[in-house]
Amino acid sequence: MSSAAAQALPAVLDRIDADLDTSLDRLFDLLKIQSISTDPAYKQQCRGAAESVAKDLDGIGFEANLRPTDGHPVVVAKSGNGRRDGAPRVLFYGHYDVQPVDPLNLWETPPFDPRIATAPDGRKMIVARGASDDKGQLMTFVETCRAFKAVTGELPLSITMMIEGEEECGSNHLFGFLKDNAAELRQDLALVCDTSMWDARTPAITTSLRGLVYEEIRVTCADRDLHSGIFGGAAQNPLRVLARILGALHDKNGRVTIPGFYGGVKELPAAVKADLQRLKLSAKEFLGGVGLKEPAGEKNRMLIEQITTRPTAEINGLVGGYTGDGAKTVIPSQAIAKVSFRLVAGQDPKTIRDGFRAFVRARLPADAKVAFTNFGMAPAIALPFDNPALARSREALSAEWGRKAVTVGEGGSIPIVADFKRVLGMDTILVGFALDDDRVHSPNEKYDLTSFHKGTRSWARILAALAG
Amino acid sequence: MSSAAAQALPAVLDRIDADLDTSLDRLFDLLKIQSISTDPAYKQQCRGAAESVAKDLDGIGFEANLRPTDGHPVVVAKSGNGRRDGAPRVLFYGHYDVQPVDPLNLWETPPFDPRIATAPDGRKMIVARGASDDKGQLMTFVETCRAFKAVTGELPLSITMMIEGEEECGSNHLFGFLKDNAAELRQDLALVCDTSMWDARTPAITTSLRGLVYEEIRVTCADRDLHSGIFGGAAQNPLRVLARILGALHDKNGRVTIPGFYGGVKELPAAVKADLQRLKLSAKEFLGGVGLKEPAGEKNRMLIEQITTRPTAEINGLVGGYTGDGAKTVIPSQAIAKVSFRLVAGQDPKTIRDGFRAFVRARLPADAKVAFTNFGMAPAIALPFDNPALARSREALSAEWGRKAVTVGEGGSIPIVADFKRVLGMDTILVGFALDDDRVHSPNEKYDLTSFHKGTRSWARILAALAG
Repeated sequence: MSSAAAQALPAVLDRIDADLDTSLDRLFDLLKIQSISTDPAYKQQCRGAAESVAKDLDGIGFEANLRPTDGHPVVVAKSGNGRRDGAPRVLFYGHYDVQPVDPLNLWETPPFDPRIATAPDGRKMIVARGASDDKGQLMTFVETCRAFKAVTGELPLSITMMIEGEEECGSNHLFGFLKDNAAELRQDLALVCDTSMWDARTPAITTSLRGLVYEEIRVTCADRDLHSGIFGGAAQNPLRVLARILGALHDKNGRVTIPGFYGGVKELPAAVKADLQRLKLSAKEFLGGVGLKEPAGEKNRMLIEQITTRPTAEINGLVGGYTGDGAKTVIPSQAIAKVSFRLVAGQDPKTIRDGFRAFVRARLPADAKVAFTNFGMAPAIALPFDNPALARSREALSAEWGRKAVTVGEGGSIPIVADFKRVLGMDTILVGFALDDDRVHSPNEKYDLTSFHKGTRSWARILAALAG
Repeated sequence: MSSAAAQALPAVLDRIDADLDTSLDRLFDLLKIQSISTDPAYKQQCRGAAESVAKDLDGIGFEANLRPTDGHPVVVAKSGNGRRDGAPRVLFYGHYDVQPVDPLNLWETPPFDPRIATAPDGRKMIVARGASDDKGQLMTFVETCRAFKAVTGELPLSITMMIEGEEECGSNHLFGFLKDNAAELRQDLALVCDTSMWDARTPAITTSLRGLVYEEIRVTCADRDLHSGIFGGAAQNPLRVLARILGALHDKNGRVTIPGFYGGVKELPAAVKADLQRLKLSAKEFLGGVGLKEPAGEKNRMLIEQITTRPTAEINGLVGGYTGDGAKTVIPSQAIAKVSFRLVAGQDPKTIRDGFRAFVRARLPADAKVAFTNFGMAPAIALPFDNPALARSREALSAEWGRKAVTVGEGGSIPIVADFKRVLGMDTILVGFALDDDRVHSPNEKYDLTSFHKGTRSWARILAALAG
């Protein structure tokens, strides 16, 4: 590293340490704003949070303003210092809105009255709604920018910030906003701070997000419900049809049996696989908390692969016939199932959807008709393992935490990251400092003081590394 | 036939013909009584119908009275002429109550204002609620008794009548009544007139009723609903478990795969099978009306076997996970299915229930727990094909209709017939003259005049045959 940013890094880190108390004051000011996006009663507070963020960014070298949408405004802030040789221009994404706070009676202190608490094991924690998701995480990045500005007089890279206010209610207007402002928002790389560490001591970069295909299947046989005393034995039963077809979706080793399902799926690079192996995620650790013991996925795969880097098929719902108390001897006319597939890189949603539909149709007996409705088609997102920003970010994180940062996949999808790739053509580095016990979306949400402090320092190292 | 009854038969049949108009008047009087048993508002009318039946029976040589129950009274009538050499003492069962009449606006004429109508094809029909089910059928037997009394001065056999008033609302008090009065009600043979002809020209004797085992299965995996983005691939899914198990309940030939399921099931005697074959029940005829085309049961069995004399397994209900509109990526904690089995002679309900439970348990993967609830355990009823009353009744019916009477199985169960066997040790001859188009339980219920007239004549022949 030889850039100005890299040279300034030690001083920036010192500055972050020295400034911790006032940076906490600034975070607390933001946490006090009741920016609950899903509840129209808090519309003004959401705007207030946006204004607060914009004003703060204005003060540290950004040109920030509020962009109206049909919902809550988006804060867009630009550092304005153009492209630098060898350094990527970055788009940072975060959100200023928070989840509702009910049930309020379960909060030990008021959710918008932030405080520092001490855990039984001595860890200091910031407790408030949004402390972790996402105000605390967002501010780690802002505080890094502030420290660079204070030490070097400028931001280390060309940075555009896009801070939305509807993440907790579906980001309904963000996709349109992204498309409408594509030219302005398109940078070389996206940075997102909305994910978790592997554990309290091990930093993580999320390098893949599974995609989703969600299908509803409606099987109809007779044109009315029938009495099983009269028709039982002769009439096709849509529940039997669905059970037989969906019961055949997996083989005895837990593999999905749809022809071609694994066609484009690649093995992880050996080094990545070895890293995952070293994490030693145990079934007890991951499943014990919800009353389970044994991973139910592909038998020859590590649990961590099953939940992050391997595709799945699940039945999310099924209903048909009599479902009340007691007995009714009905052969229903119709039965409905909801089936979803988590996809990984190399799987095309349309191919998977069509493959599933063909799988069902091929198994339909006489007198059974099927209708499909699609409720989701999102490709998986995978950061190429050879993206240079990944290696740099990983080294930077490892240096800060004194432990090799791990690259992990996330089982679910974050739609905006897919949009960054699809609409703006950008890869995303997902780095976050949340912990599994942060009680995100629940009462007494917290963010470890270490997450906030070392998270801020982590971003300083990452930005310096990217600038270098 | 050499008994007094047999010798009197021609005169009895003449008497029935000559008396047709007045017998219709008597039936109409009974049809006018609004004996809707399920509606407490008609309590007095139910009692009125019982009194009317009892009074009528009193007039033709029975000693009849109303026996109170916690619901509507049961009419018990005894002919009092003791056992005769070689002739069975019979218990006749029928019911005086009827179904509700709604939707009233669909009736062409008031439901309790009986009339004779003419069908487009010239058939005369008695139209009223209860015309077929069961007042018309019941009165065929009463009118036969009346004719014997008029011609011979006595009833041809020792006959006990048990006419209940709660058949249309579950016969809730009849089982207790039967047990409490077992000594009095136990005869050599039961006769029931509450079933159908094969078609308008072919009489039928119902020789078997399928039994039932009804089970609810509740499969639980995790101790809460899970998000498929996080747990998908690793968490056991109770819907997958149920689909896999229930999808394996039948093989590709439609046979139930539970070990031992067919263990005690006997093949029909060749002659009975040949009779069934001659009926040529087609899929179009039986399934066409409900939008189906192909029998879905055991592949190597005739349709009529599938629905009457072969055992079945059906999924009557299944529910789990998200079943509303749209998509929710949940892995449910629990899923529930209702599964029922129609049993035939030779199958023990407890063995079948235990076999099913073992079948499910043997297929449970790790982390899946199952709980069973039973909602029904009734054995099948089968009249032994060598019961002499069957051959005699069949000949008598064939003589009346000029066509060989068929013996058929019924797909569902008639609980009282099972009770006759279990509590009183009696076989039952089920003969009825209803037709499939009688609109039983529906508006404009009817009973063909031919059913009433030749039905009455049929009973005369049957009683003479049994007496002989």
